[in-house]
Amino acid sequence: MADIKIVKIGGNVIDNPSFLKGFLNDFSRLEGNKILVHGGGKEATRLSGKLGIEPKMVNGRRITDEATIGIVTMVYAGLINKRIVALLQSFGCDAIGLSGADANVIKAVRRSPVPIDFGFVGDIDPKDISTEFISTLLEKNLTPVFCAICHDGKGDLLNCNADSIAAALAKSLSNKFDVSLVYCFEKPGVLSDVADDSTVIPNIKVEEFDRLVEDGIIAEGMIPKLSNSLDAVKNGVREVRICSAAALNSGEGTVITL
Amino acid sequence: MADIKIVKIGGNVIDNPSFLKGFLNDFSRLEGNKILVHGGGKEATRLSGKLGIEPKMVNGRRITDEATIGIVTMVYAGLINKRIVALLQSFGCDAIGLSGADANVIKAVRRSPVPIDFGFVGDIDPKDISTEFISTLLEKNLTPVFCAICHDGKGDLLNCNADSIAAALAKSLSNKFDVSLVYCFEKPGVLSDVADDSTVIPNIKVEEFDRLVEDGIIAEGMIPKLSNSLDAVKNGVREVRICSAAALNSGEGTVITL
Repeated sequence: MADIKIVKIGGNVIDNPSFLKGFLNDFSRLEGNKILVHGGGKEATRLSGKLGIEPKMVNGRRITDEATIGIVTMVYAGLINKRIVALLQSFGCDAIGLSGADANVIKAVRRSPVPIDFGFVGDIDPKDISTEFISTLLEKNLTPVFCAICHDGKGDLLNCNADSIAAALAKSLSNKFDVSLVYCFEKPGVLSDVADDSTVIPNIKVEEFDRLVEDGIIAEGMIPKLSNSLDAVKNGVREVRICSAAALNSGEGTVITL
Repeated sequence: MADIKIVKIGGNVIDNPSFLKGFLNDFSRLEGNKILVHGGGKEATRLSGKLGIEPKMVNGRRITDEATIGIVTMVYAGLINKRIVALLQSFGCDAIGLSGADANVIKAVRRSPVPIDFGFVGDIDPKDISTEFISTLLEKNLTPVFCAICHDGKGDLLNCNADSIAAALAKSLSNKFDVSLVYCFEKPGVLSDVADDSTVIPNIKVEEFDRLVEDGIIAEGMIPKLSNSLDAVKNGVREVRICSAAALNSGEGTVITL
């Protein structure tokens, strides 16, 4: 099976134009099949603020009403996605930006309005990803760049979680490819002491995870990202690496395997 | 050669949500190969206004500075493009939204800053359109949906004219397809009396154009659209039809042929 790297970046990379440019230069040099998935960063929050749209929160989670899905579609699928694609093109990487609606590549299901109606928020089943279309693009030496906007197939766009999209893509493509998933974030890896960047845990096996959580070694904020990672390696993904964006090409960080 | 229809819509369709939905339903029922090109409508102007960004005009033409290219990228490539794609998907039309940067499908050249620097504005040469990539999409029964944002290949996005993009696509694809280009606008066709919608000129031959302009029958506002149309039929496009969006499937309007 051919290799593929699926790399996810978040706000810490996107919000800094010169860092983003350097990162995309590194990314463009990765050989072979690759996919980039990006989050949103602070641009959507800034735009909402300028437009006087107050974020609506319920139980600490953001509600995506009609005005908000418009804003995140503009920022994620428009501004950030096309900026990234144009920069990758300038580095010789033949990128193509995609939302889930494009070519029906990722269909999402709107989250149940009970008990809390989060509005235009969706969840993805890896079975609803068109791996055939993605394979066609890869065969043409194209590099798909996904934003976190998907659709429900009934005409509505849905805001999805970029970490979950990356994991779902990784799982669905593991039938056809030897998949390595890379989560780039603000820390150099999973730390045994959150306050000390030199304490990166180099490897985590699935079987060690529960003990690391019980012993309080894996900090609370890391648990969702690690749960996505564990789920990925349990479902056919060869390895997940959690690292800083600056370490994309160095192989540093925390590697999670079965 | 296989047929292809390239349809361009502007603000009068985009700015009215229920009319847009009806139009996209009609468009989705066109059989065979098809491409949609859309302009921007008033959404970008509204967003600029809300953000307190004053349009900068020189000699009556808009300057696209850095803030403005950000806004039009958000609105054209993000909000409008993805809304259209999601609606087409809901009508069973497998649409894929594209800017010119995506898969390097349309490269533009930034307009010379002399004598007037229009900023991030680009012009297109039909030779810089990747007909191979578009053909690949069409072979997969996909319907490309183009916004008017292109790129220069050096990392910058450029605002282009949607009428010109439609004409350039038509000309470049005429090597591989029997192309019919349709410009949908607010009138039922080219009128011999601008004040009377019942005076549609059903056919215009290239050789008649100069006389119609000289005689003042073709109104000033129509000349750029008709120049684009004449240029298209002189360069391999079978016919150009200028009609109202409501008449897409009826065959009404003005047909321009060689």
